[in-house]
Amino acid sequence: MRIDAVDFFYASLPTVTTAVDGSQDALLVRVRSGDDIGWGECEASPLVSIAAFITPPSHGACQPVSASVLGRRLDKPEDILAISADVAYRSMDVLQASHTYSGIEMALWDLLGKRRDVPVWSLLGYDRSHGRIPYASILFGDTPDETYDRAREIRSQGFVAAKFGWGPFGHGTPNDDAAHLFAARNGLGNDTALMVDAGQVWRTDVDAVRARWDALVDVDATWLEEPFTGSAFDAYAAISASTNPSRGPRLAAGEASHNPHMARHLIDYGKVAYIQIDTGRVGGIHPAYEVAQHADHGGVTYVNHTFTSHLALSAALQPYAGLRRHRWCEYPVALSPLAQAVTPDRLERDVDGLVSAPEKPGLGVTVDLDALAPYLHDIQITIDGHPVWASGQ
Amino acid sequence: MRIDAVDFFYASLPTVTTAVDGSQDALLVRVRSGDDIGWGECEASPLVSIAAFITPPSHGACQPVSASVLGRRLDKPEDILAISADVAYRSMDVLQASHTYSGIEMALWDLLGKRRDVPVWSLLGYDRSHGRIPYASILFGDTPDETYDRAREIRSQGFVAAKFGWGPFGHGTPNDDAAHLFAARNGLGNDTALMVDAGQVWRTDVDAVRARWDALVDVDATWLEEPFTGSAFDAYAAISASTNPSRGPRLAAGEASHNPHMARHLIDYGKVAYIQIDTGRVGGIHPAYEVAQHADHGGVTYVNHTFTSHLALSAALQPYAGLRRHRWCEYPVALSPLAQAVTPDRLERDVDGLVSAPEKPGLGVTVDLDALAPYLHDIQITIDGHPVWASGQ
Repeated sequence: MRIDAVDFFYASLPTVTTAVDGSQDALLVRVRSGDDIGWGECEASPLVSIAAFITPPSHGACQPVSASVLGRRLDKPEDILAISADVAYRSMDVLQASHTYSGIEMALWDLLGKRRDVPVWSLLGYDRSHGRIPYASILFGDTPDETYDRAREIRSQGFVAAKFGWGPFGHGTPNDDAAHLFAARNGLGNDTALMVDAGQVWRTDVDAVRARWDALVDVDATWLEEPFTGSAFDAYAAISASTNPSRGPRLAAGEASHNPHMARHLIDYGKVAYIQIDTGRVGGIHPAYEVAQHADHGGVTYVNHTFTSHLALSAALQPYAGLRRHRWCEYPVALSPLAQAVTPDRLERDVDGLVSAPEKPGLGVTVDLDALAPYLHDIQITIDGHPVWASGQ
Repeated sequence: MRIDAVDFFYASLPTVTTAVDGSQDALLVRVRSGDDIGWGECEASPLVSIAAFITPPSHGACQPVSASVLGRRLDKPEDILAISADVAYRSMDVLQASHTYSGIEMALWDLLGKRRDVPVWSLLGYDRSHGRIPYASILFGDTPDETYDRAREIRSQGFVAAKFGWGPFGHGTPNDDAAHLFAARNGLGNDTALMVDAGQVWRTDVDAVRARWDALVDVDATWLEEPFTGSAFDAYAAISASTNPSRGPRLAAGEASHNPHMARHLIDYGKVAYIQIDTGRVGGIHPAYEVAQHADHGGVTYVNHTFTSHLALSAALQPYAGLRRHRWCEYPVALSPLAQAVTPDRLERDVDGLVSAPEKPGLGVTVDLDALAPYLHDIQITIDGHPVWASGQ
């Protein structure tokens, strides 16, 4: 069977703010092949990712993503890997291509799983899908009191782990940050794991992290995520070298990786203890699987990065579904109405409080275009008056 | 003075082929501030790069490039660095942003240099612009005979160095490749330096390179460029470890770096001997300058990567203009009529056969929109019927 069509659906809230809430817009991808369809989701910047699919070619190594996808054979997992290799080569100089293709690749796996009536994790060779401990992923409040209230709310929802990130954290003094950290810990109580996401705020400034380390140890943070620019391996390594595996936080990073190499480098050179992969950026499910395998062999813990819909969450859980040791799962709890509208299916916590990749075929979720309708936008792109893109074409 | 406007001009040849000739299209950037203007050029995929400038925001760390540029102060070099830092942070999740911003950053330096009546290299702190040995950068022929003819032609133009790349190289057997290498060497004669660009064709396959190494040594290649995917540091390091500084080629790479970190990693982890930077991708002139400084301190040779216009060439020569040791300069000799139309100014070889960054203010070249007119395209982008982009707006 051939890939007949790739359709994009761009949705956003009526107002998108500068809060770092990744569920304010979405780019859904639908792939069609014969009578089958598959769904995926690209992470962020829908217009740019659509442009990378349909852009006129600049030269042989700068072709649109569509050139490697449309009309291709899709009968087995190897077909997906062959398409991925062609995208990487033919769209080498289209920087956005890996973000665009990530959503497509998910949809290819979803379609193939549904066609064969098996979950994607089974296509990857796993024999079961292990439960993960979901950590509630939320933003720091504007004040320590707000952070405290959010922590109380998370605790009341029965979460045994929570990650606070972004907001004012890192923009003030070490004491300001410590106030937020203690507020989070106090709100969560001592029996809830606390992760901290600095959102690259210190770029390459190792001393800024050192100035906050004692507070991170005092609140017993499980990890400190992205203190630095994603590529600042030296800075990561400098902090990693002084962390203590048996006490205090370890470093976590990797969400911006747009190929498996970048994630491996954070492990091999940055010495991070947790590698966090967004299947909506790294090139899709199989590149994430490659990272998970590398992490597993190297004693590093794989964690998904997900801040959008439960479609994205299912795709994010597949790559390490069968690797028991990797216990955590990022679980967005403050999803926008848009992100909730993407799919009526929810990956809810089971009786043990764990979340798993679904047992259903493909990604195990459906997309509800009717529910999405109020959020959908119509994009038209013309070059010299000729349409090169129209929504849902 | 504030930045009043950023205008993009998308030009292409009537037919763009799958040849890896980067001069088949162009995205020119004009920045206006008061009565001053500056010009820059983004490398590849114009529609995607325009989209990254005007895309609706997805969230606070996924804003369009325009959000960090328009209305900003532009009085001194530090203003450019502040804008660059904001683009990196606020457009963190727009992967294409660094390609888009690269052309803008060049234009900011060009404008500031013209405003102050000094060359850009002077603004960077260099006291002179050293001459470089230009190597003619051309594609392998489809057959060894064609490669031979091209080599003869280059020699007849008086070049003392030539780089052959892409085309069939690496797609056939090691013997096929050897035939092209010997054809190139025979055509050039023994007194002309020969560089070879494999265009990432072997991805991560170290053995594929080893199988061709003897031929590369036999033709006395100066360097082998990009045998692997840009991020495959392990593969680069494996080959680098077995190269001989006093005999045979060394490895060269770096053109895809979209921030200075990536280039440093190729030096620090991939152990390349030549680091090749495209100012149209790495974030502009100052990030390239940072790489040049790092290379200079580490005994690595900095080389520009340029395959488009002489505007791009001038921007590419600025970052290492004052660093005498770095002798080479990539010099495209088979520019398309479009690339020639970009600027009437040429960075010609001087009496010693050397090419230098111009002594004139800014980038020292002008853009001729009238000459470009036959190649320009009109792009219109609407969202829900509202125009978000129209060419030359």
